Amino acid sequence: MKTHITSWLPIKKGHDFSIHNLPFGIFSTPTKSKRIGVAVGDQVLDVFAAKKAGLFVEHALPHELFNHGYLNDFIALGKATTRAIRLEIQQELYNPNSVLQYARVFEPIDKVVLHMPLQVGDYTDFYSSEEHAINVGKMFRDPENALLPNWKHLPVGYHGRASSILLSGQSIHRPYGQIQQDGKPVFAPSKRLDFELEMAFVVGKSNPIGTRIAPKEAEDYLFGLLLFNDWSARDIQKWEYVPLGPFLGKSFASSVSPWVVTTEALAPFRVEGPKQNPKPLPYLQTSGAQNYDIGLEVGLTPQNGPETVISRSNTKYLYWNMVQQLCHHSSNGCPLRVGDLMASGTISGPTPDSYGSMLELSWAGSQPIKLNNGTERHFLEDYDTVTMRAKATNKEVSVGFGAVQSQILPAV
Amino acid sequence: MKTHITSWLPIKKGHDFSIHNLPFGIFSTPTKSKRIGVAVGDQVLDVFAAKKAGLFVEHALPHELFNHGYLNDFIALGKATTRAIRLEIQQELYNPNSVLQYARVFEPIDKVVLHMPLQVGDYTDFYSSEEHAINVGKMFRDPENALLPNWKHLPVGYHGRASSILLSGQSIHRPYGQIQQDGKPVFAPSKRLDFELEMAFVVGKSNPIGTRIAPKEAEDYLFGLLLFNDWSARDIQKWEYVPLGPFLGKSFASSVSPWVVTTEALAPFRVEGPKQNPKPLPYLQTSGAQNYDIGLEVGLTPQNGPETVISRSNTKYLYWNMVQQLCHHSSNGCPLRVGDLMASGTISGPTPDSYGSMLELSWAGSQPIKLNNGTERHFLEDYDTVTMRAKATNKEVSVGFGAVQSQILPAV
Repeated sequence: MKTHITSWLPIKKGHDFSIHNLPFGIFSTPTKSKRIGVAVGDQVLDVFAAKKAGLFVEHALPHELFNHGYLNDFIALGKATTRAIRLEIQQELYNPNSVLQYARVFEPIDKVVLHMPLQVGDYTDFYSSEEHAINVGKMFRDPENALLPNWKHLPVGYHGRASSILLSGQSIHRPYGQIQQDGKPVFAPSKRLDFELEMAFVVGKSNPIGTRIAPKEAEDYLFGLLLFNDWSARDIQKWEYVPLGPFLGKSFASSVSPWVVTTEALAPFRVEGPKQNPKPLPYLQTSGAQNYDIGLEVGLTPQNGPETVISRSNTKYLYWNMVQQLCHHSSNGCPLRVGDLMASGTISGPTPDSYGSMLELSWAGSQPIKLNNGTERHFLEDYDTVTMRAKATNKEVSVGFGAVQSQILPAV
Repeated sequence: MKTHITSWLPIKKGHDFSIHNLPFGIFSTPTKSKRIGVAVGDQVLDVFAAKKAGLFVEHALPHELFNHGYLNDFIALGKATTRAIRLEIQQELYNPNSVLQYARVFEPIDKVVLHMPLQVGDYTDFYSSEEHAINVGKMFRDPENALLPNWKHLPVGYHGRASSILLSGQSIHRPYGQIQQDGKPVFAPSKRLDFELEMAFVVGKSNPIGTRIAPKEAEDYLFGLLLFNDWSARDIQKWEYVPLGPFLGKSFASSVSPWVVTTEALAPFRVEGPKQNPKPLPYLQTSGAQNYDIGLEVGLTPQNGPETVISRSNTKYLYWNMVQQLCHHSSNGCPLRVGDLMASGTISGPTPDSYGSMLELSWAGSQPIKLNNGTERHFLEDYDTVTMRAKATNKEVSVGFGAVQSQILPAV
């Protein structure tokens, strides 16, 4: 097919949802039930309508597959198919004679309702940023031995709560919980409410119980990425977490961005990760560029004030990459399912302005974070809005995630 | 309705599935698709067929509700309805003129295939036996301060993995994992494979995010109980679990019994729990008999040997009761969903023969467990079969859980 260098669809240069991106999500309108959409510029391509208009004929798929309330069944088609469908959409957007120009297949992005894109079976949170693990270790354990002995040998992680994963835009009530006050436990609203800047990947293929995924097979299991805000109540967490790990200090809410950016879209931004020393065991050994150079930022907007960007980090800082997380997770034969989420853990960079949580930015509340409206923060206050953004760019290509944004409401 | 003192259906006295029990499960036969069944004596009542034969008319429910592959939608009808349906079945079994005598609504229990009764959204594992927590604390931490400071203030728990919950009967491959050997990590089959004797309750009602359940509302949220074997690879767990808790040492498999015993069936066996000192905070305060007197046992059967019962415990030993687990879990506004499982943690009693794991029975491998065939065990060996049973009995009533039974197969 003859393709042009620019699309017939006007897309502003540097747009998050450039023609190089084409992330998948779920949307509805007053007249359209939940269905699969692809964000492109300021439009959402109705993939169900595109299918009915004649696209994707070689895949012999039922129309209804694109009219589901979650992406899971689409993702379960497998990488070969979903990759081909995305490429066909891209080609049609370049093709000046595309049927998409004349069919009614677009909706303005500000006129649609976005929904949780995935039915998440299980959600796992890793702890894969060395800078973050060192910062936490320095604050709460031994500054001289900040990393625990296992940290460089395996990607430490824990099971999270799937039921409280929310879409961007849904506000969060400050959680109550059991916290230590004047040396005794009380049940009160958290005073140390925090965010964690994370990325999560979406599992794209299921493995049967008792089987493990090898690094060379991993590509098929990684469908795409989301922005992930792992809300954390530090005071609840601190009291409850020994010896079985984080629980209610996390499970009140996590928030995800609505568009799943595929690993194909992110391919131009693959970079090598930090050198791993000691060398991981063979089941965790990967080669080549397994990290992603994706710029991250966190904005904090007080109730009446302007936003202050309080952190700028990058996905490339992660010590353990997604392939290693995936292979480790299945190394005991644990079955992963399409739509499972695996979050990275807080992504902190090497400098204090790149830390991915207020715990680190305020160094456990000892150093206030200054906001543009003249106020300060140690932790989140009621009516604060947290906005995380992620974008990969080079001279030719821009691939953004949009945002995950939520406001804190008072405890109820 | 006139009822007789015995059922027209012959049921052996003391049967697990007495007319006082009537647990719910999911079964199929070569000619019947998955559907809801009730175990009664050596029969399974086909509840879908019973509905079609004219039962449950006052509830105005679609027949198809009883023809689902999981109990979730049935449970979601709410306690008032599910309780009434169970009572109607019980009355019909007493009624000598019942239509059930003449309709073809029973299948011999040994001729049906049983299936996972629930679609488990999230699974949480607590740590609610004081004896177990003390034993583990003595072995791995400080014998003088075996309980951590938070233990008596809140029911410690962690998020588990839902995807690897298996039905009784499904065998388990010994998991591989990263373990410490001669002071360095290797990737190898677990050498310290263990069971944990637990009970789990099934969440019977969903709460919206941001709301918490009060103890006095809890009854509606507790549908019933299952036997739960929380398989554990102690060597994997030991190396990975700091600081974020158990992960791959658990997530290779958990096993559940096929029949969900309702809280109504267990009502005659309610007993008060251990005295709680210090008094819990108000959001965790319960009154009256909130524990259950249910006898538990664990049998270990080597490949060619007879079974040895290696532990006899009781659900009544649990320090934290199910209402407290439920209220704690939702205290931060975490949404619970119908079909979620909350397991108790290992149920160990006060004497060494009542410990609920091999870790405790063999005191971390230092005291061999003697089997009837003359061999000894520190941890599980390949081809060992673990069978857990649970039964509540008094002079008039017996209510049993059947068994959760699985065999260990070699690592692959």
